[in-house]
Amino acid sequence: MNDSYLNFVNSPFGARLARSLGLPKPEVLRRYRADRPEFDGLIAIGAGREPHLLDALANLVASVGMTSVAHESAGLWVPLANRHGLMTGRFEAAESGSHGRLTALLFDASGIEDSSQLEPLHGFFHDTLRSLGKCGRIVVLGRPPEACATPRQWTAQRALEGLTRSLGKEARRGITANLVYVEQGAENGIEATLRFFLSPRSAYVSGQVVRIGVRAGADALPAFDWNQPLAGRRAVVTGAARGIGASIASVLAAEGAHVIGIDIPSAREALDSTMRQLNGTALAFDIAAPEAPAQIAAALDEQGVDIVVHNAGITKDKTIAKMTDAAWQSVIDINLSAQERIDDALLAAGILRDGGRIIGVSSISGIAGNLGQTNYAASKAGVIGRVQSMAPHLRARGITINAVAPGFIETQMTAKIPLTIREAGRRMNSMSQGGQPVDVAQTIAWLAHPGSAGVSGQIVRVCGQSLIGA
Amino acid sequence: MNDSYLNFVNSPFGARLARSLGLPKPEVLRRYRADRPEFDGLIAIGAGREPHLLDALANLVASVGMTSVAHESAGLWVPLANRHGLMTGRFEAAESGSHGRLTALLFDASGIEDSSQLEPLHGFFHDTLRSLGKCGRIVVLGRPPEACATPRQWTAQRALEGLTRSLGKEARRGITANLVYVEQGAENGIEATLRFFLSPRSAYVSGQVVRIGVRAGADALPAFDWNQPLAGRRAVVTGAARGIGASIASVLAAEGAHVIGIDIPSAREALDSTMRQLNGTALAFDIAAPEAPAQIAAALDEQGVDIVVHNAGITKDKTIAKMTDAAWQSVIDINLSAQERIDDALLAAGILRDGGRIIGVSSISGIAGNLGQTNYAASKAGVIGRVQSMAPHLRARGITINAVAPGFIETQMTAKIPLTIREAGRRMNSMSQGGQPVDVAQTIAWLAHPGSAGVSGQIVRVCGQSLIGA
Repeated sequence: MNDSYLNFVNSPFGARLARSLGLPKPEVLRRYRADRPEFDGLIAIGAGREPHLLDALANLVASVGMTSVAHESAGLWVPLANRHGLMTGRFEAAESGSHGRLTALLFDASGIEDSSQLEPLHGFFHDTLRSLGKCGRIVVLGRPPEACATPRQWTAQRALEGLTRSLGKEARRGITANLVYVEQGAENGIEATLRFFLSPRSAYVSGQVVRIGVRAGADALPAFDWNQPLAGRRAVVTGAARGIGASIASVLAAEGAHVIGIDIPSAREALDSTMRQLNGTALAFDIAAPEAPAQIAAALDEQGVDIVVHNAGITKDKTIAKMTDAAWQSVIDINLSAQERIDDALLAAGILRDGGRIIGVSSISGIAGNLGQTNYAASKAGVIGRVQSMAPHLRARGITINAVAPGFIETQMTAKIPLTIREAGRRMNSMSQGGQPVDVAQTIAWLAHPGSAGVSGQIVRVCGQSLIGA
Repeated sequence: MNDSYLNFVNSPFGARLARSLGLPKPEVLRRYRADRPEFDGLIAIGAGREPHLLDALANLVASVGMTSVAHESAGLWVPLANRHGLMTGRFEAAESGSHGRLTALLFDASGIEDSSQLEPLHGFFHDTLRSLGKCGRIVVLGRPPEACATPRQWTAQRALEGLTRSLGKEARRGITANLVYVEQGAENGIEATLRFFLSPRSAYVSGQVVRIGVRAGADALPAFDWNQPLAGRRAVVTGAARGIGASIASVLAAEGAHVIGIDIPSAREALDSTMRQLNGTALAFDIAAPEAPAQIAAALDEQGVDIVVHNAGITKDKTIAKMTDAAWQSVIDINLSAQERIDDALLAAGILRDGGRIIGVSSISGIAGNLGQTNYAASKAGVIGRVQSMAPHLRARGITINAVAPGFIETQMTAKIPLTIREAGRRMNSMSQGGQPVDVAQTIAWLAHPGSAGVSGQIVRVCGQSLIGA
């Protein structure tokens, strides 16, 4: 579970040795800590023609208490920021050599309607990227291509993906780059998502494309406290005894949720111990058993549940010619079919409350396929289908369904992978290192957030922008 | 343009040396040759519950003249094949150790409605994969998830992607694995696509997912000859003087098309020479010039055009901090905006005839982003947006629009890449080698085929299932 190379090259001696040998030096990623400010430093604002999101961005900047500077492409920002009572300045291109002055770059591309209008994106990132400090944040905002009025606009908005993913690959230094498409009318629903992508919580999430849609109904979001957004919510987490599941339980509890952790009876001791630390509830049974959906429903019945995280999963790797029927079936059943049965039971009985959250765990293998994982990849591709197919059905009840797709995450499981394959998996991403279980957990906490009501039907990779994909 | 390692390890001495040193030995891919049979050998048929496509498959098998064997999962095949007058046998699992007996594996998963019904896929590939010969073909057939009636069915159909991509990664030996989703009602439109995926023409296309939809109108396909499917059609190819463009022109001409090749004036000599060999027409001008759309329209006006291939493209690589405004603008303009202007002119004037084909060239960089290619990746992601946005608009006129996305293709351009990066690009795919320009050209010829009328709005990678993706 330890990336000793990362630690070594960031020690005084190791850093010197790595420099003299020309070895890569992955950044120690800045992660969220309750005892450190989550947002600080200078954010540079850029914009294309007729930006639609600057008002929402001014609210965000005020809310997180950052200081902004306007790039010349965003001439409208200064008077707008002044109206919002924000301290703001102008970005001076002359200082662009000064590394580290900025902590975030935010570009509003929502008004771009034609490929011939993409130039301000070049101007902004050309001028500012070198001034972005270690573990800085890049967020490009656009309109969902498929909702654009004209093919020209769709095309230009779709082009943002190639730009943003390239920025992620060239920025290095622990910097993330993500693209957020905001549907027309969803402007007031972007804060939770932008907070996540600007925060150290998204340390290992890069090269991703997320859509924020208009929530069903025009209701205001339920009230919540940004410091305890899940207060009063109940969250089920499967596979919660150890590893990523325990980390998910821990982060959700830290955000205020009461966690009901489920794991198999043989993991009862670890589960009890994990749940005791979080003041949670432990339920030991096999989610794949035929009676499991009824058991969960019965255990939750009185108070219901707000958040369901389907984290439990297994691997039984073999090439298909050597894979037994039992290995195929058990992986499909535990990783996919059991989740379908449980969700359907909780939904049919109304135990998952309106405004709830379902969060699955897919995988890079489910996206790209993998040698020796026909069963696992099929199950994890199925999780993607589950998310995409259920999202429209759940919309009217205000329930969202999404999945994370982890890449190489440092766990006891990955620690058993042979050294050279492990090192390749660790390094083949824009962070040149594996992620931590908490990176998956924080991404799930964002999807579980009451402010993420407009985010549904999506697959978000937690992979440091892994090279591997489809 | 030469993969000398591939040649070396497939020489008698090199093969021995590679074996003794444990080096990888990429397969010499079998490619289409007019003087060799395109289809031969035994095809094994498998099926899940209630398969909907076996009738269409029986027509296909009869049409290409292959011999089939039915796996036990496809019990319905034998009587059906007999009704179609086909020679057929039963696949004997006992012989499954005998390498190379089969040339293709075809599984009809169209009737699978729940993740609990996926097991026959395991049974079929478990039994047959070892009997599939070098450069064999795997095709899985399903229903488009997004058109499924229930979330359970959508989920199960979506799971096929993870399975198929994993099969591609584990099969090796030059074997390709692809997934074809057939919309309900499109059963009679699958032959051109299945021929392509079963043929040596698709040597470097693997891990892809293609959808065949119902064509607009209920008209029968226009009559064509499988040996000269483009006879009587006129095809514009931009950037046709050399490299991939010349290969595209050559394949389209071999299929019977009259090719109008366009390239910049400085390439006039090469263009004239290429077009002379193909009895084509050479047009030398700059597609990015403001007058180009009118020039092309004027040149084509009398007879119109059936196929437009936007192959012309440039790279001007630099990290964004060092990229000039001119480098950004020229790449966006030539690779993307010029295509939009030309298409719009040809469509507005009705010069692109009903039933026509527009084919763009995207790139793995446009899908995944790439270091130093913010401009190129944005332009190539824009090509994807162009395809997706225009497809529904063009449907009523029977015009399809698609794009290929090449991975590492051996050209004069890639020959200039430094050795270690070139070797990584060449080997990081399921074929362990780069592709040839003809692999891109053959994929375009399939999309241009009159039988591909149900294929539109799609991006098909020609990348040997490159590891790189998003």
